[in-house]
Amino acid sequence: MDQGSKSINISADEGVILQKIFRHGPINRADLAKEAGFSRSKVSGLVTDLLFRDILSETNRPGSCHGKWKDLDINQHLGYLVGIDIGTTSVDVSLADCSCSLMEHQFEASNVNDGPEIVLGQATNLLEEILQSQNVKKADILGIGVGIPGPVRFPSGEVIGGQFTPGWEGHKIQEILSKDFPGAVIMTENDANLMAVGSFNEGLAQNTDNFIFVKIGTGIGAGVFCGGQLYRGATSCAGHIGHTCVDLAGPVCRCGNKGCLEAKAGGLAIAEIAEAAAAEGKSKLLMRLKNENRGRLTAVQVGEAAARQDQIAQSIIIGSAALIGSVLAGVVNLHNPELIVLGGGVSKLGDLFLAEIRREVLKRTYSYTTIGLRIGISPINDTVGVIGATHFIRDWIFLMEGKPLSLAL
Amino acid sequence: MDQGSKSINISADEGVILQKIFRHGPINRADLAKEAGFSRSKVSGLVTDLLFRDILSETNRPGSCHGKWKDLDINQHLGYLVGIDIGTTSVDVSLADCSCSLMEHQFEASNVNDGPEIVLGQATNLLEEILQSQNVKKADILGIGVGIPGPVRFPSGEVIGGQFTPGWEGHKIQEILSKDFPGAVIMTENDANLMAVGSFNEGLAQNTDNFIFVKIGTGIGAGVFCGGQLYRGATSCAGHIGHTCVDLAGPVCRCGNKGCLEAKAGGLAIAEIAEAAAAEGKSKLLMRLKNENRGRLTAVQVGEAAARQDQIAQSIIIGSAALIGSVLAGVVNLHNPELIVLGGGVSKLGDLFLAEIRREVLKRTYSYTTIGLRIGISPINDTVGVIGATHFIRDWIFLMEGKPLSLAL
Repeated sequence: MDQGSKSINISADEGVILQKIFRHGPINRADLAKEAGFSRSKVSGLVTDLLFRDILSETNRPGSCHGKWKDLDINQHLGYLVGIDIGTTSVDVSLADCSCSLMEHQFEASNVNDGPEIVLGQATNLLEEILQSQNVKKADILGIGVGIPGPVRFPSGEVIGGQFTPGWEGHKIQEILSKDFPGAVIMTENDANLMAVGSFNEGLAQNTDNFIFVKIGTGIGAGVFCGGQLYRGATSCAGHIGHTCVDLAGPVCRCGNKGCLEAKAGGLAIAEIAEAAAAEGKSKLLMRLKNENRGRLTAVQVGEAAARQDQIAQSIIIGSAALIGSVLAGVVNLHNPELIVLGGGVSKLGDLFLAEIRREVLKRTYSYTTIGLRIGISPINDTVGVIGATHFIRDWIFLMEGKPLSLAL
Repeated sequence: MDQGSKSINISADEGVILQKIFRHGPINRADLAKEAGFSRSKVSGLVTDLLFRDILSETNRPGSCHGKWKDLDINQHLGYLVGIDIGTTSVDVSLADCSCSLMEHQFEASNVNDGPEIVLGQATNLLEEILQSQNVKKADILGIGVGIPGPVRFPSGEVIGGQFTPGWEGHKIQEILSKDFPGAVIMTENDANLMAVGSFNEGLAQNTDNFIFVKIGTGIGAGVFCGGQLYRGATSCAGHIGHTCVDLAGPVCRCGNKGCLEAKAGGLAIAEIAEAAAAEGKSKLLMRLKNENRGRLTAVQVGEAAARQDQIAQSIIIGSAALIGSVLAGVVNLHNPELIVLGGGVSKLGDLFLAEIRREVLKRTYSYTTIGLRIGISPINDTVGVIGATHFIRDWIFLMEGKPLSLAL
C-alpha cells in the first residue's frame, strides 16, 4: 500500500477482532470471543498483541463489570480520521477520532465543475480550519476518505467518465490530496457508496446486510450492500440507477443518453419543470417563489409549495416520485433488499414524495420480494456522506475493508 | 445439519483447500498453497488429514511432474451427486461423481401444476433408472440438489408463494425426497439461481465474479452473482426480474400483477401474440405452423419463422427482446455485471433476439457501466440446471457454500 505512511499491518485474525470492536464498540474479551467465533485463549493472545502495539486500549465503560478484565476499544489516541464529501454544489468536511465519533463538521457551497484543484482546495481549507479549532496536528491524521459525485475506480481513486464531474476525469484524488497530507492514507469512493457505508454504520441500515441507499439530489445514484458489504460491480459502476432510461424520447441527460431517470426526475428536473409551470402561469405560488428567487426555483422550494397544498407543485413531486419508484421496482425485483434508504436533498420533499415512491414500488414488484421491505428517509441526511467517508477510510486502514466483494484493481 | 446423514465436518481452513480443488481440479501442493494463501507446511498438514479421512485422494494427472508428490483431487469414491431441475413443463435428472463429472442425464415432459408428489415422483423414477443403468446404489448418493421454477426459502427448502408452482407452496422439497433417499443431503434452490451456479462452474461465467444468468422460458427469472457468490437477497427472492412491470395497462401475469415483463415478453407471451397474429391472418407461415400444431404455437416455432424471414415473427421476437433489454438495462445500471448469460428455451430464438437485447441494454444504460460487458447465450443450455444443482449440493456438503452472502434461516 503506497497511499500513505500510516498503513498498519493487521493479520486476518486481528482484522476479525477489530471488525467486531468497530461494530459493537467497547467490548469485553468473552463477548469478543463469542462474536469472533474464536477461543478465549486465541482472543487473549491477539488482544495482548494489539494492546502492545497500541492499536487497542482498555477502557472503563460505565456499568461494565467483568472481573479483572476491562473492556477493549480502538486506541483513540492512534490518530484522527477525516471525511470529505464533495457534492455537485457543496463540499462537506469532518474530523473524527478513531472511534469514528464526529468532532467537527463544516461545509460550504462549491461547484464541482470548477475542477479538482479548486474544489479540493476548498476542502483542504475547511479541513485546516477544523484542525486549528480542534487543536489537531496535520501529522496526526491517519486517513482521509473522500466521496465524489461520480464514478471512481476502486481502489486507485481515478475518476471515471467525467460527465458528472467535468474536468475530473483521469485525476486521482488521493494523489492530489497527498501533496497536502503526505502522512495520511487517502482513498476515494463514489458519494452514494459512502452514504450507504454511513447508513450501514450509523444510520437506518445498521444491522441490515442487504439494502440500497438512494441519493436523490442534482443527480440520482445508489450505493448497494450485499451480505453486509459494499458491492461495487465489475467496473466500480454499480448503483448508477439514475441513468436507467425511463423515456426514450425524453430530455438529454448529463450522461449523454436520452430520458434517464435523473434527467426526468432528479432535483434539476423538478426545478426546471416547476420553472416552466411558473412561466406558463399555472401556479401563483410557484410564480411568486420564482420571482423572489431571481427567476429560478429549486426542488426544495417545489417541495415547500407542495406542502402548502399547491396542486401543480404536488403533481410535479408525484410525477418525479412515480418515475423513481418505477426504477426502484426493478431494483427491488433484482436485489430483494430489506431496506431502501432515501437520502440527498430531494429526499426532503416530504411525505407525498415518499408515499408515491412506496406505492409505485409495491405496484410494480413481485409480492414476495417486498414482504418486510422498508423504505425510509435517512435521518442523518446532512452528515451521512462524511460519516460514511470516515468509516470507509477506517475500514480500509485497519481491515482492508475485510475481504472486498469486488476489487477492481 | 439434519438434512441427511452424509454431512461431513470440514473446518474453515479445510474448506479453503477444497474450494480451490473444486475450482482448479487436480492440483499439486505447491499450487494449492499459492491459491489458498497458506504456507506450504499448513497445506501439508491439512492435506494429510483430508487424505486420511478419504475426502481427498492422490491422482496421477498425465503430464504433471512435481517430484514425489502427486496431484490432489476430491476422492471420487466418496459417493455420488444428483442434480434435479424441475421446470414448468419438464423435469431433468442427472448423476455425477464427486468431481461433478456428469455420468448420465435424463429428462421427460412434466407439468409443474401436477404438484410436488407427482413431479418429484417422476424425478425419483428417472433417478432410479439412472442408478440402475450406472450400477450405483441408492446408499452411495451423497447429496441431491433440486431446482424448482419459483422462489424457495434458503436453506429450509420451503416453497414460497406458489404463483409459479401451484400446489407447492409451503412444501419442503427436501422432506418429501428424503423419504426415498434417507441417507442423502438434499437442498433446494430456485432454478435460475442453480443455472447461475452451473454457468459459474462450467459455463460462460467461469472465473466471472459479478454476473447475471437470465432464464427466459415460460417465465423470466435471474440468478445473481456478486463477488463470486450466489446472492439470494433478504428473503430468498433476488432475481425476480420477470415481474418488473413494463406496462401498467398490460396483461395480468401469473404473479397477480399487471404488465410484468414475463407476461409481455416470456415464452407464453410470444406464443400467444403469434397465435393472435396467425388468427388474424397476418402471416401465412405462422398460420400454417399453427394449423399443423393443433391451433397452438410455441415461442421456438416463432423463432423458426423469424429465421425464415417471416416479418411478423421477426417483429414479435424483436418486441419481446426490446422489453427484456429494457429491464436488463436497469439490472446493468444497478449491478454493473461483467457478463449476462441468457439461458432457457426462449434464448434459442437466435441472433435477432440477442442483437435486439444487446441494443436495448446499451441504449438505456450509463456508458461506463457497459464497458467490457458481454451478453451471450449459455452454451450448456440443456444441462446448465442439473450441472448447477450438482455443484450447489457439493458446495453445500463440503463447503457449506463457503460463507453464504445471505443466509435466510
